[in-house]
Amino acid sequence: MKRELRRRRRKEKRGRPADAALLRITQPLHKLPVYNLLDEEALERLHQASLRILAEMGVAFLGDPEALAILRDHGARVDGELVFFDPELVMEYVAKAPAQFTQLARNPARNVIIGGEHICFAPVYGPPFVHDLERGRRPATLEDFQNFVKLAYLSPYMHHSGGTIVEPTDLPGPTRHLDMVYSHIKYSDKPFMGSVMSAEAAADSVAMAEIAFGAERIREQPALISLINISSPRRLDDRMLGALKVYAHARQAVIITPFILAGAMSPVSIPATLAQQNAEALAGIAFAQMVEPGTPVVYGSFLTNIDLQSGGPVFGSPESQMAILVSAQLARRYRLPFRGGGMFASAKIPDAQAGYESVMTMLPAIQARTHFILHAAGWLEGGLTAGYEKFALDCELLGMFHTLLNGLDISDETLALDAIAAVPPGGHHLGTEHTQRHFRDAFYRAQLFDYNSAEQWEAEGGRDAYVRAHDMYKQRLRSYEPPPLDEAIDEALREFVEKNKAAH
Amino acid sequence: MKRELRRRRRKEKRGRPADAALLRITQPLHKLPVYNLLDEEALERLHQASLRILAEMGVAFLGDPEALAILRDHGARVDGELVFFDPELVMEYVAKAPAQFTQLARNPARNVIIGGEHICFAPVYGPPFVHDLERGRRPATLEDFQNFVKLAYLSPYMHHSGGTIVEPTDLPGPTRHLDMVYSHIKYSDKPFMGSVMSAEAAADSVAMAEIAFGAERIREQPALISLINISSPRRLDDRMLGALKVYAHARQAVIITPFILAGAMSPVSIPATLAQQNAEALAGIAFAQMVEPGTPVVYGSFLTNIDLQSGGPVFGSPESQMAILVSAQLARRYRLPFRGGGMFASAKIPDAQAGYESVMTMLPAIQARTHFILHAAGWLEGGLTAGYEKFALDCELLGMFHTLLNGLDISDETLALDAIAAVPPGGHHLGTEHTQRHFRDAFYRAQLFDYNSAEQWEAEGGRDAYVRAHDMYKQRLRSYEPPPLDEAIDEALREFVEKNKAAH
Repeated sequence: MKRELRRRRRKEKRGRPADAALLRITQPLHKLPVYNLLDEEALERLHQASLRILAEMGVAFLGDPEALAILRDHGARVDGELVFFDPELVMEYVAKAPAQFTQLARNPARNVIIGGEHICFAPVYGPPFVHDLERGRRPATLEDFQNFVKLAYLSPYMHHSGGTIVEPTDLPGPTRHLDMVYSHIKYSDKPFMGSVMSAEAAADSVAMAEIAFGAERIREQPALISLINISSPRRLDDRMLGALKVYAHARQAVIITPFILAGAMSPVSIPATLAQQNAEALAGIAFAQMVEPGTPVVYGSFLTNIDLQSGGPVFGSPESQMAILVSAQLARRYRLPFRGGGMFASAKIPDAQAGYESVMTMLPAIQARTHFILHAAGWLEGGLTAGYEKFALDCELLGMFHTLLNGLDISDETLALDAIAAVPPGGHHLGTEHTQRHFRDAFYRAQLFDYNSAEQWEAEGGRDAYVRAHDMYKQRLRSYEPPPLDEAIDEALREFVEKNKAAH
Repeated sequence: MKRELRRRRRKEKRGRPADAALLRITQPLHKLPVYNLLDEEALERLHQASLRILAEMGVAFLGDPEALAILRDHGARVDGELVFFDPELVMEYVAKAPAQFTQLARNPARNVIIGGEHICFAPVYGPPFVHDLERGRRPATLEDFQNFVKLAYLSPYMHHSGGTIVEPTDLPGPTRHLDMVYSHIKYSDKPFMGSVMSAEAAADSVAMAEIAFGAERIREQPALISLINISSPRRLDDRMLGALKVYAHARQAVIITPFILAGAMSPVSIPATLAQQNAEALAGIAFAQMVEPGTPVVYGSFLTNIDLQSGGPVFGSPESQMAILVSAQLARRYRLPFRGGGMFASAKIPDAQAGYESVMTMLPAIQARTHFILHAAGWLEGGLTAGYEKFALDCELLGMFHTLLNGLDISDETLALDAIAAVPPGGHHLGTEHTQRHFRDAFYRAQLFDYNSAEQWEAEGGRDAYVRAHDMYKQRLRSYEPPPLDEAIDEALREFVEKNKAAH
């Protein structure tokens, strides 16, 4: 059986009837200059403050004696469940993480590089609710989950299938990760994320990746990337530690992300919050390298402030924008891939507020040379809701960012002095040779944004962006065709899922 | 009468019953690092390309023999109406413009500095239509114009009253500038713009500024800033030249702005368009300095691309974003204040598209260290419409930008290590001493954006941003009280307006 699966996998990789139009667009490169908010001296102060937090205040590793033993064995000072790191120790282990790695996709043309000059967009992660124009806000189901997998598969600007795009609340908690991982493999051929519900869920994710990719193959290059959150302030819980250990042992990638709402889980100060975040991220990253040196790991940031009037989290705030820029600088200082930003919004529906907020945190993430942008489409209501229309609208922006990331190339051809000379004062360039040569791909072409005259727009129904996005996502779902999946692999996966469900 | 006016003006400046809350917020400083898109070498290539355009292709100065004579007398080569500039000549005259200047406001506490570390936000300029939720899109009237003057006056984040915020289409064209200038003075005490309808309209604007501020005073420091557009490609028309000459002779500030839609009025290439824009701007700026050396002048950019499908202009495009960054670099190279960016949108109403688009062009303008941002609030439909709700929403963003512009201060107090140490793992910071010390102004406080839970938001009517902005602008207009204006000055202005209307 195993040999047969291997053969099928090899066959799968060759001769796939690829959709040329979709495959043409791949991960863009960061050709824009990086935007650094802090100078070297200020960054050093932040770094030093983090080292003091690690050495003097410590980070709690909760409910996992094995983790504490690993930490103690590798030189950390352990006092109860509180762990203290000397600066040299932290830096020694952080340095073992690779600066860049490749995550496998079921379709090798869709493998993604995490780190370096590359950027990777992934869908929203975690919402228990979904929202669309017709049906409003409601608990998410497996059908919603699969719809979003399909929408991410269909967007040429989305490089990743993500993880828990929405929580399929219609399925039992202990086994829904099986359905999610299976759906990623079945309905998409882009790379995806593993479960962090528990150590067992992580092990199931690894087992299913082994079926789909081969056990040896995924030890060479990871087929999973998973989200290990740190519960600020200064706390890793047993659930996350369990999943982290499984993934590190299996050499699968992890994103270590302190989750901080400044003013509640940290001081009402962005610099203090950054120092705390940095200490927490470094603790998690050093631990991952103690478990398995060389584990691919991403420095993650999820940091915004609370609203000082309502106490609720604020997305799209100027404070969170600055935090993204500095977090990326810190990750760069440690030569680690960085995850941050996203199309964040506090808005409940895809209205103007959602639009403003999304760019306020997404554009700085682009400029900060972020490598992995989770929540790059679909996020609403502080992350509690995944919006169908929001997803479609955000994907339009991702397309624009593909163009933006290319930057400007100043050459004789782009300066086009001959073309300028050929058109007299007051003339137009619509028919020049230069225009004919370049107009096909000179500028980004929007699919969802409207550039018609008001009269034309009115004549076509005066549909706002929300309504247009509704029509578009529905049309896209109707057009969906699944990527090919070898029947034997599919069967082995379904068998695994059924067996494990039965065992619960 | 003149002496009496002077006395009243002096009295006006003292003892004004200022609204403390509104006056507390003033022009923010650029404390963020500047974001340069191009390196020095690429910028130099652009600069050299512009010089070639000026020397070899020339710029047309149309219908104004006096302008041609001035150019010829100052060393430019004139061939018919086409004018050629040697590189040294351009640079010699461009260098005569000040790097920074102060524009007077009727209330001296509201004077603005244009240039250097300062940023100034001004309302949308030019739309013939207005739009609001209740009445939809309709031709703008004087009442709309005055409403927007009042809204700009009432926003603490708007530093300027602007110019032709909307075209009052209910008034006769030849004299409506009188009503506009009068309305700026009467309903606001912030600085404002002069008319560029014609040389006569410019002279009227100067005369009214002399009544309000004193003729000697405005020769020392300008009380007017006015928008001189260049009709790309490579063309200044007699109307703009006439206004430019009037303002330069009166030592009033001008913004020289090539208006370019790349792909139509320039090649389908942003670098070519930037080279062309730069040549045009330098021609206009050099001319202004030939008319009157030292004339306060701003390097303006209004550059976006056309949609290659519909031919219409695209606002919020990634291409225009890059153009803003580079334009600011060029202006910096010449030590000139820079005008660019704005809350641009192609969207017809304040929907999600409008939100995304606005930040896509406004945020880079902030990062580019722009000095004067026209269209900082209210812009819809490619500038054909001023939206009431859009204005209110944009002002919320301007508030956020005030916070953003402050950047991050890394100090012992902001790093707050004591506060971090005082809260155990898993604890919260809501009641710490550090929080109590700072929570009042730690983070930006929104007035219009919603951060409530979905349940709370639903319970309060589930109003989207559009509806909330509608309620807010109406409430603001109801709360409006005019700033004091000396009765003698008011009477003199009204007399001037009536006399000039009668003469037409």
